[in-house]
Order: sequence, then structure tokens, then C-alpha cells
Amino acid sequence: MKLDIHTFTVTLPNWTAAFLQSRPVTYPTIEDRMRLAIELSRLNVERRSGGPFGAAVFDNQNGNLISVGVNVVVASRCSQAHAEMTAIALAQQTLSTHNPASKGTFQLVSSCQPCAMCLGAIGWSGMKSLVCGARGEDAEAIGFDEGAKPAEWVKELEKRGIEVTLDILHAEAKAVLNAYKSTNGIIY
Amino acid sequence: MKLDIHTFTVTLPNWTAAFLQSRPVTYPTIEDRMRLAIELSRLNVERRSGGPFGAAVFDNQNGNLISVGVNVVVASRCSQAHAEMTAIALAQQTLSTHNPASKGTFQLVSSCQPCAMCLGAIGWSGMKSLVCGARGEDAEAIGFDEGAKPAEWVKELEKRGIEVTLDILHAEAKAVLNAYKSTNGIIY
Repeated sequence: MKLDIHTFTVTLPNWTAAFLQSRPVTYPTIEDRMRLAIELSRLNVERRSGGPFGAAVFDNQNGNLISVGVNVVVASRCSQAHAEMTAIALAQQTLSTHNPASKGTFQLVSSCQPCAMCLGAIGWSGMKSLVCGARGEDAEAIGFDEGAKPAEWVKELEKRGIEVTLDILHAEAKAVLNAYKSTNGIIY
Repeated sequence: MKLDIHTFTVTLPNWTAAFLQSRPVTYPTIEDRMRLAIELSRLNVERRSGGPFGAAVFDNQNGNLISVGVNVVVASRCSQAHAEMTAIALAQQTLSTHNPASKGTFQLVSSCQPCAMCLGAIGWSGMKSLVCGARGEDAEAIGFDEGAKPAEWVKELEKRGIEVTLDILHAEAKAVLNAYKSTNGIIY
């Protein structure tokens, strides 16, 4: 058996580089950080590069942006390439460790609550906190499947030392989901 | 803000290419397939390339091997690089689709039951069946955290049309986990 592919790769859409060059390095408040995640989700729909989800990782001590992610499942041919997964993996490879907690205090900010896969991944991610905008039920309301999450998923993360903050700029985050549905975007 | 890294990559250990060249293309029985996954988990420990976990994706109609995965979390600087995640992502990029179910009937065979992240990922993976060797409790017994899985996780996968078969070559699969512990391998 000759294996064709030994490496898999996930790449951000081309527009993210120019977008980020126009943005600050530092995001002092939780709302500043969420505004970036929501803007990423909105642009991902507008540029037709993927689903209506955006995320970013910040150094929670100085507010510096470390990485961003958007949903690139279809473009990457990778069902794992959700916004949160992409932001976490890019942060880890930027920081050169599978466990960012060994190098500081990092925060994942996501335009929507995580699905079952992303939730599990956050537990292993070395993030110290999670901030969410839209709710899982908002994503389900437009047809996305969130998977089988433990009922007490916030407590499960907190048990692992990961602080959770919900509903930051909830209306703005949810509006992007509803706009996606009205464009007949792909639901998977 | 200038983003340093736009792409993340996960690569199999070097030894997998030569190993697979010495192996068949086709694996007719479920035990043949599990034997390959367990051998991958054993070699990953022996070559010191990662944790004691191996997985592979097969075309369930002809038994052909599509991709393999081992745990390369530390080497890849990516907490998502579990054996199952790596095998699924390589299968998807080999088949050039985020949804292999659109191209056939594919089976994920894993030397151990999936953690909470991998479980969520399998739901979105386009696999039609999952076969496991060792149990989650075997991994926990040597110190690995499986995460918060729904109590009825087998039923949750079956609800999504993914058939689950447990305990195939269970003793052989568990023996690799126990051997890993005795070598004082990294637990994360």
C-alpha cells in the first residue's frame, strides 16, 4: 500500500490576511474581541468562503490577537475545519506548543457556542477561557446540527479550569446566522 | 496586525510510509483492519512518535485502506492531532471531499474508543461505521482524560446513521496502552 497523502492542511481564506492588516494588534475588552469574531463570521459569508462562524484566540493578559479562524469545512475538504478548531490549531502552531497554557493565559472567542466536536477540542486546547456570542440554539434554528453535547457543558469546561462567558453581543452574532440562512448558504 | 501563520498542518511520522509499503492494500475482515490500527498504535510508542493510539479509514465495500492516523499531538504542536482526527482528515483530503459519504461507504477503525472531541468529529466525518478496540476506561486507567462524553454515545452516533462495533481484539488493543504506561510515556 502506497499512501498518497501524509499531511493534511487547513488554510484560512485569502481575504483574512488583508483584513487583519487593517485591524489593531490589541483588543482590550471582551466586546472588542467578540466584535472581531463576529466580523470574521460576517465576512466569511460575504466572501462566500464558508459557513457563518468566526473565532479568534487572544493573549488574555495584554489583549493581543494570536490567531483567527473561520469555518472552511468545504474549501479545506475537512469536516474538522470549524472556526474554533482552526483558530485553536493556528494559535498552537504560532506559539509552537500543543498546550498554550504552558506559555501564558489564552482566550478563545467564538461568534457562536461550540458544537460537540469543538467543545471536546476546547478541553484539550490549553485555552484558559471561552467567550461565546450566538447560542447553540441559534445555529440549530437555521439548520446546523450541534451534535450531542453534555447537558452541563459549561460546568464540564469549568471543571477543567476553563472559564466560560456566554451571550456577549448575542444579537449581533445571531444576526449573521440569520442573514446566512436568507442567502441560502450551505448547511452541513 | 500581521498574521504569521495562515495554514496549519498535521503530518504523519516518517516511519508510516515505509511501514505501509510493506502492508497489503486490502483488509477483508474487521479483525484484519483492527490489527492494522493496533500495530500503528504499538509502533507509535516504539518509535517514540506519539501516544499509544492508531486508527485507519477503509472503503467498507472492498476493504481498501484509504488513510491511517496515529496520535501526533506533541510532534505536530496540535492538540487536535489524535489518531482518529488525523485518519479522518487524511481520508477526506485523499477523497477530496469533507463528506466521504457522498462518495461511498467508509469505516473508521480505531485502536481505542474515541474521546469527546473525536466522538463529536466522527458525527461530522462522513464515515458510515466506527470500529473500536480498547475501551475508554482502558485509556483512563493509564491516566488519559476522555472528556465529557454523552452517556449514550453509541446511540447518539447510531442516530446519525453511524454503525458502532466495540471490543474488537480488545485484549491486544489494551495491551498497547498498558505497555505505554510502563515506558512512562507522556500523558496529556
